Amino acid sequence: MPHARRLFTFKLSGNSYKVRLFLGMLGLDFEAIEVDMRGGEHKRAPFLALNPLGQVPVLVDGDVTLADSQAILVYLARRYAAVSWLPQDPVLLAHITRWLSIAANEIQHGPATARLIALFGVKLDRELALKRSAAILAYMDSHLTQQQWLVGDHPTVADVACYPYIALAPEGHIDLQQYPQLSLWLTRMEALPGFVPMVGPAASA
Amino acid sequence: MPHARRLFTFKLSGNSYKVRLFLGMLGLDFEAIEVDMRGGEHKRAPFLALNPLGQVPVLVDGDVTLADSQAILVYLARRYAAVSWLPQDPVLLAHITRWLSIAANEIQHGPATARLIALFGVKLDRELALKRSAAILAYMDSHLTQQQWLVGDHPTVADVACYPYIALAPEGHIDLQQYPQLSLWLTRMEALPGFVPMVGPAASA
Repeated sequence: MPHARRLFTFKLSGNSYKVRLFLGMLGLDFEAIEVDMRGGEHKRAPFLALNPLGQVPVLVDGDVTLADSQAILVYLARRYAAVSWLPQDPVLLAHITRWLSIAANEIQHGPATARLIALFGVKLDRELALKRSAAILAYMDSHLTQQQWLVGDHPTVADVACYPYIALAPEGHIDLQQYPQLSLWLTRMEALPGFVPMVGPAASA
Repeated sequence: MPHARRLFTFKLSGNSYKVRLFLGMLGLDFEAIEVDMRGGEHKRAPFLALNPLGQVPVLVDGDVTLADSQAILVYLARRYAAVSWLPQDPVLLAHITRWLSIAANEIQHGPATARLIALFGVKLDRELALKRSAAILAYMDSHLTQQQWLVGDHPTVADVACYPYIALAPEGHIDLQQYPQLSLWLTRMEALPGFVPMVGPAASA
């Protein structure tokens, strides 16, 4: 009998990992369905019916189908998590939204793109990706001198959204040692209950 | 006496316009402070204290200072707007988050980037920006065959977040005539109460 909660994922995708990480932290069970991205499965039917943009991850939770890792984090937070993961307060919610934008823009086109180039040989501008990475990593490092978590004084979906491609930055030949506060924040994330590493049992499920 | 609500803006910035548009729709008064981006004012103190990433817009609303156009929309919606602009329902909120991600990623690095290249001579990959534009515009056009608004059956912050750089796409030499549903959606947006055009009184305030 198929599981009620299914995550279409690719084991080397940091965006897929983002959702597996939060599912782990929330202790939510799911069936991981590996999409053969190297074989182009994400750009063909039937996957395109789940996400016409042809991207992983996609979450199917009962009758809810959702694409986009940030959107899935917000859904899981509001539906299953303590409110501290996605506060209702307008100012805190706005600050979290800012970090979701940064995850979708600056981090995606910075460290995540540097990794795509290094790991998969994707033909994108490496110099530009490294320049963008340096800017956002310096900003995050500076921001984290003043606080333990990206927004407020608790971990939120902002931290979960930003963690994967920062932790994976060394795979794009980015040295994180020059960002000590960022490195400490990674360590705090990894100490949270339910933390799952990038390649773990869930990845090969 | 300075106005309690100030928007640091640049009159040719679609992201600044995004916020002016929503402030107009909500009927909220504000003082527009033009940032001299051509003179590099956004990359120097004192502006960097408002946003260390050196981007407009920045909203200062009483003791709240917020950067990032998507974050500002979420703040304004939660604080001042009817709940229909940013529903509480987990699924609707997630779908809106998806479009905020698309505004920050696919639209920013598609039509907004094509416009940056055409209008300001920014040295970015035009072919890549046009390829990304074609993909997201086709998806939006297809999505809008099934519904009048991007999420649910009312306008939301998702529509406001996506409208500016779609409406401005022709300035990046992108022809919107091949996307009839998208063009109809632009027309619906422009008919909403409080709609303000890109270059209007607020821009030269």
